[in-house]
Amino acid sequence: MKKKKVYNIAIVGLGNIGSYLFNFLNNNKNNLSNKNNANFKLLYVSAKNRNKKRNIRIKKKQWIKNYNDILKKENVDIVIELIGGAEGAAKKLVFGALNKKKHVVTANKALISKYGDKLSKIAEKNKVNLEFEASVCGGVPIIRSIKEGLIANKINRIYGIFNGTSNYVLSSMDINKTSFNETIKKAIKFGYAESNPASDINGDDVASKVKILSCLSFNSFINKNIHVEGIKDIDEEDINNSNKLGYKIKLMGFSEILNNKIYQRVHPTLVKKSSYIASVNGVLNAVIVDGKPIGKNIIQGDGAGPAATTSALVSDISSILRGNIKFPFAISNNKRKNFPSGNIGDLYFSSYIRINVKDKYGVLSDVTKIFSNNKVSIKRVLQSPNKNKKSSSIVIITHRSKDNNIQKTLKTLAKKSYIIQKPKLLRIENG
Amino acid sequence: MKKKKVYNIAIVGLGNIGSYLFNFLNNNKNNLSNKNNANFKLLYVSAKNRNKKRNIRIKKKQWIKNYNDILKKENVDIVIELIGGAEGAAKKLVFGALNKKKHVVTANKALISKYGDKLSKIAEKNKVNLEFEASVCGGVPIIRSIKEGLIANKINRIYGIFNGTSNYVLSSMDINKTSFNETIKKAIKFGYAESNPASDINGDDVASKVKILSCLSFNSFINKNIHVEGIKDIDEEDINNSNKLGYKIKLMGFSEILNNKIYQRVHPTLVKKSSYIASVNGVLNAVIVDGKPIGKNIIQGDGAGPAATTSALVSDISSILRGNIKFPFAISNNKRKNFPSGNIGDLYFSSYIRINVKDKYGVLSDVTKIFSNNKVSIKRVLQSPNKNKKSSSIVIITHRSKDNNIQKTLKTLAKKSYIIQKPKLLRIENG
Repeated sequence: MKKKKVYNIAIVGLGNIGSYLFNFLNNNKNNLSNKNNANFKLLYVSAKNRNKKRNIRIKKKQWIKNYNDILKKENVDIVIELIGGAEGAAKKLVFGALNKKKHVVTANKALISKYGDKLSKIAEKNKVNLEFEASVCGGVPIIRSIKEGLIANKINRIYGIFNGTSNYVLSSMDINKTSFNETIKKAIKFGYAESNPASDINGDDVASKVKILSCLSFNSFINKNIHVEGIKDIDEEDINNSNKLGYKIKLMGFSEILNNKIYQRVHPTLVKKSSYIASVNGVLNAVIVDGKPIGKNIIQGDGAGPAATTSALVSDISSILRGNIKFPFAISNNKRKNFPSGNIGDLYFSSYIRINVKDKYGVLSDVTKIFSNNKVSIKRVLQSPNKNKKSSSIVIITHRSKDNNIQKTLKTLAKKSYIIQKPKLLRIENG
Repeated sequence: MKKKKVYNIAIVGLGNIGSYLFNFLNNNKNNLSNKNNANFKLLYVSAKNRNKKRNIRIKKKQWIKNYNDILKKENVDIVIELIGGAEGAAKKLVFGALNKKKHVVTANKALISKYGDKLSKIAEKNKVNLEFEASVCGGVPIIRSIKEGLIANKINRIYGIFNGTSNYVLSSMDINKTSFNETIKKAIKFGYAESNPASDINGDDVASKVKILSCLSFNSFINKNIHVEGIKDIDEEDINNSNKLGYKIKLMGFSEILNNKIYQRVHPTLVKKSSYIASVNGVLNAVIVDGKPIGKNIIQGDGAGPAATTSALVSDISSILRGNIKFPFAISNNKRKNFPSGNIGDLYFSSYIRINVKDKYGVLSDVTKIFSNNKVSIKRVLQSPNKNKKSSSIVIITHRSKDNNIQKTLKTLAKKSYIIQKPKLLRIENG
């Protein structure tokens, strides 16, 4: 029998994920070797601080003090980057490894969504793999599915819930009737949010994932134009109003090709209670791929955490062990395209608009006139007086209207003396 | 630049799926060649009847009258079998092709679930691919996901809705309040069921898929022991009762490892209205994989039809073009295991039991006594008089009880003189 090839692996970064992966690879050597018909050795590890308390047993000869020295080791075949961040050590390590013709596996969405095009060119030139399944939606095997399982399809739209923290916060506000700030505190306490959850909450994390999924879905280069809104302005009243109107609020990412332009956007979105997306609660992620000939395909699973991320990292490592060399973005770089960017203002949405107004004669009449002047037609109005304040809350659901017109409406409204608080806009997904 | 390798393809069987695939491959040559970094030629086609009306243009030199002659062609690399059926031509072609060291792609679940082990041994010995993504749940890339995207995971349970026809029938009976026979007629008319839908309705189609998914999930050989019940006895009253009790009825397939035994089963199942599975309607399929470290992963999509099946077939062809040679059942045959078979009678379910009884004193008391004698504890009872008949319908929901005890209860009940109709059992899924 032919002897199996042995791949030498180095892990750089030993936080929760790196440590989990380290143990997993040690405990599943035989099984992975059998399935992939190749062997691997966990040759080296490196991290900022050797003395940090970790639940792993590193042998003395495995430890490399300076991660740069790993690049000098001729015998390392696969570098697993778990440092994080688009710049600094992570960037240096990944560029360095690919230049040295080493395969790279990374969970770093910031890095890939910023330098993916450059990195992919080096990988293709040097015929090594650059794998980043773990960078998008943790354990949901969406990248591999687009590149392999759904390879036949011309994808025209990809969207879904790509951030577990914000989904946990919104679900939890809805179920427990708690405020945004209270819920964030709970999320941090229970480990569903990092101590600084800014990039999860402000939509940046989703934006990175949308950019990566766009490239894979449309065979395009990274497009940096993306409309991003987070969830920090969502309050209990929005959640209550949505419920009354038959909706749930979800932070969603969308990317689609329309008239040969690419539209990328991230924003809180109202979805019908009876829809599939409304049922995706807690830290779950869900990706919906719409393409031909397949129609709609859904993949759902745990979006984050050491266990789910390790599942993704190991699928990447396995792909390399099987010798399955692939283009990082599904197709050769010289075949990738640049689509012109579309503007969210040119898209049409039914929208939820909430304004707080002083309680006086003629306000509703003036408000509705502004809508009509901007060619936004109103489908439904909910007006209710605010407690102990001489003010009312007005919620308007519009018919499908051009987003630019809705934004103009909001701008005009904002200037009116009867408006107490900046008008709020939430788009509705009817798909 | 290195010249790309060219693979010669032969398609055998040109029904709806074969014809769709033929056109798709002709129209997507460039794109597939770019993505897979290899070229292909659609060299030969063969089918029973050359003169059948098809929407495809076959060149004279492509047509092979007798499919056996394809096996003799040295230059054919990939044989795509779309004849169907576990025996006869399909069997001969697939065994023949693998023996001649040709790659095989097939959508034939009957063949794979019966002869998969033998075929897999030949493929492994001859280092060619045997690919059958299209045999399970059409366009849902479940096989590739288990073998690649979820490769890290130890799967302990796989289940879901694996048959579009029966799911369409049950959803449609529920939504349109139509009878089983009426709905089947409509399904045939609209093309959601074949003119003879027996294997879709009686559970056999799901059983084949469960057997294949078991092998992939548990690294085991095909296990022929499976408990199979179809949907033909479900009537409008069951649908109504389920709705009243907060459930939907779905035909589901399950495979799981418990105490080192494999339990495979197919039966109509009550699922909570609020559950994900209840939301999977019409011809959709959904597969839920439960494993470690991933937790639960869901994949949903169109389960049948030429478009979805072609998506799966092309993912198989692409895998071969990329030179991604893999074990057909995820692991080498000499590492596959045989699990002893468990019996459904040893599992515990909460169950829905419906009996029709003559309206007379003491019946309910006798019925409940039989349950108690068999150690089945009752959670809920619905009794309602049948119209214009001196009889009642009794629906009992049990607490979790051993299935054997429930079956004994039904047998005892069936013998009672006050029972008008064979008692009916539907198991409840609480997962």
